[in-house]
Amino acid sequence: MPPPRSPLAVPLPALPPLAGVRLGTVAAGLRYRGRDDLLLAELAPGSSVAGVFTRNRCPGAPVVWCRTALAGGRARALLVNAGNANVFTGRAGDLATRASAEAAAGLFGCKPRQVFLASTGVIGETLPVQKLIAALPAAHAALAADGWAAAAGAIMTTDTFPKAATRVARIGGAEVRISGIAKGSGMIAPDMATMLCFVFTDAKLPPPLLQALLERGLGNSFNAITVDSDTSTSDTLLLFATGQTRHPRVSEAGDPLLREFRAALADLLQDLALQVVRDGEGASKLIRIDVAGATTARSARRIGMAIANSPLVKTAIAGEDANWGRIVMAVGKAGEPAERDRLAVAIGGVWMAREGGVVEAYDEAPVVAHMRGAEVHIAVDLGLGRGSARVWTCDLTHGYIDINGSYRS
Amino acid sequence: MPPPRSPLAVPLPALPPLAGVRLGTVAAGLRYRGRDDLLLAELAPGSSVAGVFTRNRCPGAPVVWCRTALAGGRARALLVNAGNANVFTGRAGDLATRASAEAAAGLFGCKPRQVFLASTGVIGETLPVQKLIAALPAAHAALAADGWAAAAGAIMTTDTFPKAATRVARIGGAEVRISGIAKGSGMIAPDMATMLCFVFTDAKLPPPLLQALLERGLGNSFNAITVDSDTSTSDTLLLFATGQTRHPRVSEAGDPLLREFRAALADLLQDLALQVVRDGEGASKLIRIDVAGATTARSARRIGMAIANSPLVKTAIAGEDANWGRIVMAVGKAGEPAERDRLAVAIGGVWMAREGGVVEAYDEAPVVAHMRGAEVHIAVDLGLGRGSARVWTCDLTHGYIDINGSYRS
Repeated sequence: MPPPRSPLAVPLPALPPLAGVRLGTVAAGLRYRGRDDLLLAELAPGSSVAGVFTRNRCPGAPVVWCRTALAGGRARALLVNAGNANVFTGRAGDLATRASAEAAAGLFGCKPRQVFLASTGVIGETLPVQKLIAALPAAHAALAADGWAAAAGAIMTTDTFPKAATRVARIGGAEVRISGIAKGSGMIAPDMATMLCFVFTDAKLPPPLLQALLERGLGNSFNAITVDSDTSTSDTLLLFATGQTRHPRVSEAGDPLLREFRAALADLLQDLALQVVRDGEGASKLIRIDVAGATTARSARRIGMAIANSPLVKTAIAGEDANWGRIVMAVGKAGEPAERDRLAVAIGGVWMAREGGVVEAYDEAPVVAHMRGAEVHIAVDLGLGRGSARVWTCDLTHGYIDINGSYRS
Repeated sequence: MPPPRSPLAVPLPALPPLAGVRLGTVAAGLRYRGRDDLLLAELAPGSSVAGVFTRNRCPGAPVVWCRTALAGGRARALLVNAGNANVFTGRAGDLATRASAEAAAGLFGCKPRQVFLASTGVIGETLPVQKLIAALPAAHAALAADGWAAAAGAIMTTDTFPKAATRVARIGGAEVRISGIAKGSGMIAPDMATMLCFVFTDAKLPPPLLQALLERGLGNSFNAITVDSDTSTSDTLLLFATGQTRHPRVSEAGDPLLREFRAALADLLQDLALQVVRDGEGASKLIRIDVAGATTARSARRIGMAIANSPLVKTAIAGEDANWGRIVMAVGKAGEPAERDRLAVAIGGVWMAREGGVVEAYDEAPVVAHMRGAEVHIAVDLGLGRGSARVWTCDLTHGYIDINGSYRS
């Protein structure tokens, strides 16, 4: 039985066509039955591509493939399957990536290295690559400019809702669009690209510029979230630019002409990253953690992540317990500079601990009400310096155990 | 309702008297009702003491007290309360440690700095120190050489069984005894002292030697276990030597005369550490992880701990799923040198993954049987060098959520 839809789910936005992108999905029968599990995306000739990937030392074969392909900077197609991660599948896994890229390249008349691959699902099972290749012509025939919702659905695994976002931005006088889809929803940890996320724009941006823009957008999105501290072997975030909309030429990520685009991209990435957290396995609450007063921004982020990854903090929030003592513990375990008598902790805007002790007679009623809500805000002030960071996570519930403790999920 | 007794519980061993130690417990009513929650231990005059403590940056007031007191190297009493951790209690917390140490010192006619303190329980609530002090005379009156079982019980919080161990060893021709009690059972993480653990011996060992012996014994015991990756603010491990048994004088930890003693102490510490893991909150399986072939021992330990702290590995084991793919993921996320094509993974002695892929046609029957047992053995060979490590943890079950997700546990 699939897990119930996350109580934190958000509706799928309408995604209008984006010049230079067509999407096709099919039920390839790789693992799931009765649903599409293969996505093929066509990108206009000349499209550029940027990407970031998991830092896991045992990455999947598709990650290895993409890293090499990225050096070319050009993309004609994206091929994604759900249900089998093609990870730790030995030489067969490497051969499967090559064979599927070659098959897709044949359909588009491009080089295999212009085909980008991603796989998500079980680790260590051989990818049924012939079945995948056999399904490609149908996916190709299904290519359509309005295939966005189907694409967001086809890449899901334990996700309980499809994830997408879209923005517009002007570059000079021209309006360009950015649209993306993503999937989660376990094995999500800091400083990784993400689970799978694919973002497309019709702007014309050369590969090195596109890469710089992508990396700028990570800090407050996919590198600021964690679900369970585990780091997938398949995390992949790709950004494609089809160049189909005419706008003034830009050559540097810092170009003032890109101000709106940078903001829109950062906003879209954060939107998608938070959708991934909202669908964290078993999540019932979205938790935002603001750390201020740390010695450095890096220290603040580490403290934020120590709180976000603490099972005791996460279970307390699941239990709607404003247990600030566990937050103090998590601050202390981060190993970063902290002093008891300067540390302050707030939940829902109410400062509960300050100057080394509980704030006597703080108003508990708004805290209790806040804990009952779907979004919980934690604030920590170290009182030491000017370093700050914001990170997001979800709570740890019985749902997580249900999803991950069943046989070969 | 208290959680049910851990299915991994072991019986409390009989602890004979140990020369120079008397133990008294009372129900001080600090938090619990109907049970002893205060332990007072008397140590013969001249007893030496060694200790290690949490590395959490927000330690409790008793930890701060003990660190200072340890400089004196001498102990006459140990005072432990359960139910209130006296952590993040500001200046009141510091005053409470001083007041209780002074009160106990009055009973024994010693200096306050010869009284060692430990508190465990809720963080951030003011310790009712007057109630504690009022209970001291009764605890003092209850002092007895056979108070070991009561002592092991009085320091419990969410523990579901009392933890103790005893060993004998010869130093020269003389037989000395080592006995210890411990309590867990959440907020247990690597490289920390422990939760609370108090070990006593009647050997005569000066403080610096005692400290060296204690630190030698940590690597394969309390620094090799983790329950939930969270690090308590109160972790305390104290080792007292009463010097009541005559034996040849020793002055160095490496002295050949101490060979048996070192081995017995290491064995006792490992026994107590594993009892803590066996009572990990919600634990249904004890997991042993052997890492070999890493570039260094330190790297091996980090990889072992990454596996031991992975929620996805721990939930899989709870579900009796031999999901070696998640073990590969955890190896990769450790950030230590690892190569897919050299990595091998075994569960229950059966190598399931090797040379970058699944071992075709491995015998699944013994693995399935092994997963159903109460103890699960994971082995990982990196194939890179000679670094090895062994660590222990428990699985992650609904029980953990039950215990920690309820209001102000």
